[in-house]
Amino acid sequence: MARPLPRDLTLGELIERFGGELAAGSPSDAVRRLASLSGARPGDLSFFSAARHKAEAAATGASAVIVSPALADALPAATARILVADPYAHFAAVARWFAQLLEAPPPARLVHPSASIDASAELAAGASVGAHAVIEAGAVLGEGCAIGAGSYVGRDARIGAGSRLHPGVTVYHDCVVGARCIVHSGTVIGSDGFGFAREDGRWAKIPQLGAVLIGDDVEIGSNCSIDRGALEDTVIGDGCKLDNLIQIAHNVVIGEHTALAGCVGVAGSARIGRRCMIGGSAGILGHLEICDDVVISAMSLVTRSIRKPGFYTGVFPLMENAGWEKAAATLRQLPVLRDRLRRLERAAAPGQDLSIDPKD
Amino acid sequence: MARPLPRDLTLGELIERFGGELAAGSPSDAVRRLASLSGARPGDLSFFSAARHKAEAAATGASAVIVSPALADALPAATARILVADPYAHFAAVARWFAQLLEAPPPARLVHPSASIDASAELAAGASVGAHAVIEAGAVLGEGCAIGAGSYVGRDARIGAGSRLHPGVTVYHDCVVGARCIVHSGTVIGSDGFGFAREDGRWAKIPQLGAVLIGDDVEIGSNCSIDRGALEDTVIGDGCKLDNLIQIAHNVVIGEHTALAGCVGVAGSARIGRRCMIGGSAGILGHLEICDDVVISAMSLVTRSIRKPGFYTGVFPLMENAGWEKAAATLRQLPVLRDRLRRLERAAAPGQDLSIDPKD
Amino acid sequence: MARPLPRDLTLGELIERFGGELAAGSPSDAVRRLASLSGARPGDLSFFSAARHKAEAAATGASAVIVSPALADALPAATARILVADPYAHFAAVARWFAQLLEAPPPARLVHPSASIDASAELAAGASVGAHAVIEAGAVLGEGCAIGAGSYVGRDARIGAGSRLHPGVTVYHDCVVGARCIVHSGTVIGSDGFGFAREDGRWAKIPQLGAVLIGDDVEIGSNCSIDRGALEDTVIGDGCKLDNLIQIAHNVVIGEHTALAGCVGVAGSARIGRRCMIGGSAGILGHLEICDDVVISAMSLVTRSIRKPGFYTGVFPLMENAGWEKAAATLRQLPVLRDRLRRLERAAAPGQDLSIDPKD
Repeated sequence: MARPLPRDLTLGELIERFGGELAAGSPSDAVRRLASLSGARPGDLSFFSAARHKAEAAATGASAVIVSPALADALPAATARILVADPYAHFAAVARWFAQLLEAPPPARLVHPSASIDASAELAAGASVGAHAVIEAGAVLGEGCAIGAGSYVGRDARIGAGSRLHPGVTVYHDCVVGARCIVHSGTVIGSDGFGFAREDGRWAKIPQLGAVLIGDDVEIGSNCSIDRGALEDTVIGDGCKLDNLIQIAHNVVIGEHTALAGCVGVAGSARIGRRCMIGGSAGILGHLEICDDVVISAMSLVTRSIRKPGFYTGVFPLMENAGWEKAAATLRQLPVLRDRLRRLERAAAPGQDLSIDPKD
Repeated sequence: MARPLPRDLTLGELIERFGGELAAGSPSDAVRRLASLSGARPGDLSFFSAARHKAEAAATGASAVIVSPALADALPAATARILVADPYAHFAAVARWFAQLLEAPPPARLVHPSASIDASAELAAGASVGAHAVIEAGAVLGEGCAIGAGSYVGRDARIGAGSRLHPGVTVYHDCVVGARCIVHSGTVIGSDGFGFAREDGRWAKIPQLGAVLIGDDVEIGSNCSIDRGALEDTVIGDGCKLDNLIQIAHNVVIGEHTALAGCVGVAGSARIGRRCMIGGSAGILGHLEICDDVVISAMSLVTRSIRKPGFYTGVFPLMENAGWEKAAATLRQLPVLRDRLRRLERAAAPGQDLSIDPKD
Repeated sequence: MARPLPRDLTLGELIERFGGELAAGSPSDAVRRLASLSGARPGDLSFFSAARHKAEAAATGASAVIVSPALADALPAATARILVADPYAHFAAVARWFAQLLEAPPPARLVHPSASIDASAELAAGASVGAHAVIEAGAVLGEGCAIGAGSYVGRDARIGAGSRLHPGVTVYHDCVVGARCIVHSGTVIGSDGFGFAREDGRWAKIPQLGAVLIGDDVEIGSNCSIDRGALEDTVIGDGCKLDNLIQIAHNVVIGEHTALAGCVGVAGSARIGRRCMIGGSAGILGHLEICDDVVISAMSLVTRSIRKPGFYTGVFPLMENAGWEKAAATLRQLPVLRDRLRRLERAAAPGQDLSIDPKD
């Protein structure tokens, strides 16, 4: 469950800061913690934004709930409420403030004594470096950025102002992370692209001389791998959001504000447009282009360029295993079945084609 | 191959400790190492539990073999054997004992001098912390737990008694790992859930204020990502077993004794029951519920709740590529083919529906 | 973009070192950086090897281009060119030399003072160990190998001559990495195989007493997991190339010169032959065998042994979502549709089977 604040927060203070109209409660009522409707107990603040949660709302133990006037009657009569037009957005703003209040205090020393920092690395004002982190020669840490414990920032790499690397992040030499980025633990930025040439049945390594360029306001989850380019860079545009365990191959270019869910794999030199949403475990083959505003379903494989915004899916439907075995077995025969159907159609109306699709 | 024990172990000692009846050998015969039937050499102990391994049994170089009376005759006549009812379980018990004997001796100092441990962290009796590990303020390490080299335990996080974090594990603030757990290297527990709200074509971050709660006797493989919840916690039940490279999104709840194979992805707020088995690279969409005792095949995608125990699959069958191209091309036309079939049926027997499935 | 060399390099020097015939330029012309045709600017050297890049070649800003005589006329007339038979291979050789020239200078001290190295570990001549790395008892580091910052080499593990572990690599006890290998950050070698036995609805751990054996000239990407074997070892053959985020389960055996793209999952005891190519996000079930020279498409699942070299695919084709919903719904009925087709065929020609496939 969420941590409680170190001090009480009154509903009056909340309304002063974020707006809203108080009903069924007093400005001096206090909350200390945020919770879901069903998880809430006295002292908790929750929100109610979707009619399908009426049952949870009616039973909530929260001391106060952020809600729209339309839904408010579903709450217990005695539950204090803050009436707003958009409860979800309102709660998100409150949550962001709580998150700041709950942040660990800044460390006594910005640079942990156990960190290894090359003399030629540049640390701007307020840059912090955690225990056992390593900052190599020529690396540049922007104003107020935070490098987590055990992280590694390679030679001449740059971390932008206000960016945060959680513990155990690796940024190889020459890579650039923009401003106000967040990178979660275990992520590796700048490993060699998978470049090999076939020579006599063996693989000869092609050096990967490019780097990775990550824009501003990008968030990358944990245990992702973003490879450096062969010559030019691998590029992640401003405002992109990557979940965990994502593979970005060399020379991929991703447009601004695109979101990738967990376990997605993007192959080399694929270009993805802006504001795309790629579902969990989806795959995108290399050397193709996806235009802006495309949504790809989970576990679907993009094998050709997509030039039209829209919603695309390619997934085998789940069935009870016995049914699947029959369906999968018949699938192999599908072209034969189609040919048999066509023969029957011709036999039924010689000279006339009953098929609905004339070009078949 | 497996390491040998530091000393000889006699068959007499094995039988005294684990039971069984000795035949074709002497209690003073010695073994030092465990091996498979085909990999075994003199001095090795193996087991033979499945008739399909008769060939390997007949050719084994092992000094002694744990076997059932029914299968024992397949062994070379001169090979010592320990006769038991269940050779696999018996060998597993012996293997667990060998594993203990082969463990590295405990370090001279429980807490490595290079570890960074906040003064307010609590270490119970026997808790050990490896080189360059970081333990933050308020963290609690339970009795006899072991934190591997380079691992990170965040502020107010708790690691239960007897649990073991291998080198390079990251546990974010406020997360809880139960007792007798094992977590392998590279796993990240508590990274932010993938929570963003769309605002004007951009993504605004929703703070993830919950935590991760891992029960007792859980084993988690390497390079897994288990995200913290948005408000409530992400929960992994007692006795669960997770393989490597698994993605667990925010607010997932997994019931006791469920096993997930490698590369599985579970999306946000999915609830999985007890004793389920999820196959490698499978995917589970969010906000759905899977009941107890469900088996999901590898690489299958669960898109709706499953309310009935059973075995479910959704995978495109593998074919030679030329055959696949034809089958895949015909697949797009499947609804049209079905309609053509229905027209033929109606033409063949007007007024009468020959289809086997009357509701089509 | 790629880093420039610290000094100018003349075309004369390049030709002396690597061969080729200079045209439209002077031996004293200088280049400092490698770039793609479209990314190149004055001072850059590029290559042009495929006719489909004619447009980029005609517009290139490169100072010099490595090209074949057949394609050279597509370049701007004033662009210096080095004429060779195989521009791609020639450029790769130049790139390898640039990569060496661009390497960071070796550290002042081979062993970083902050590294924790057990007194019984053996470091051969030229072995280097980075900041905060941990080398356990009995580990052996071969001649000229390089252990990156924060890496972990376990008890009695062995790293071969000339091998390189990037920062943050974990090698568990007893594992062996051959000579001239490269392992990228976040990869874990030797975590426990996923071995559990069902006992009364719970899972009992089977100790994993084997190790991992990686051959020579193997490259492994970032954030891979390679599990140790149950008794015998997990084996990766000489010259194999693994991309990122790959899962190799216990007792997998992979033959020489096989390449696995990103996010591939290989289940326990699978055996893969030599010179195979496994596409991104593909899956291979356990206890099966794939012969030499097999190509598996991306996101395809191998469920049975493959005994014939060739090209295999099993992927649901991508469609606009509305079309996919219809196709997927019809797919469940596929066996029923086939039966209805057969009935129509029999009704059309009683006693005669019009089906093209007599065994249906």
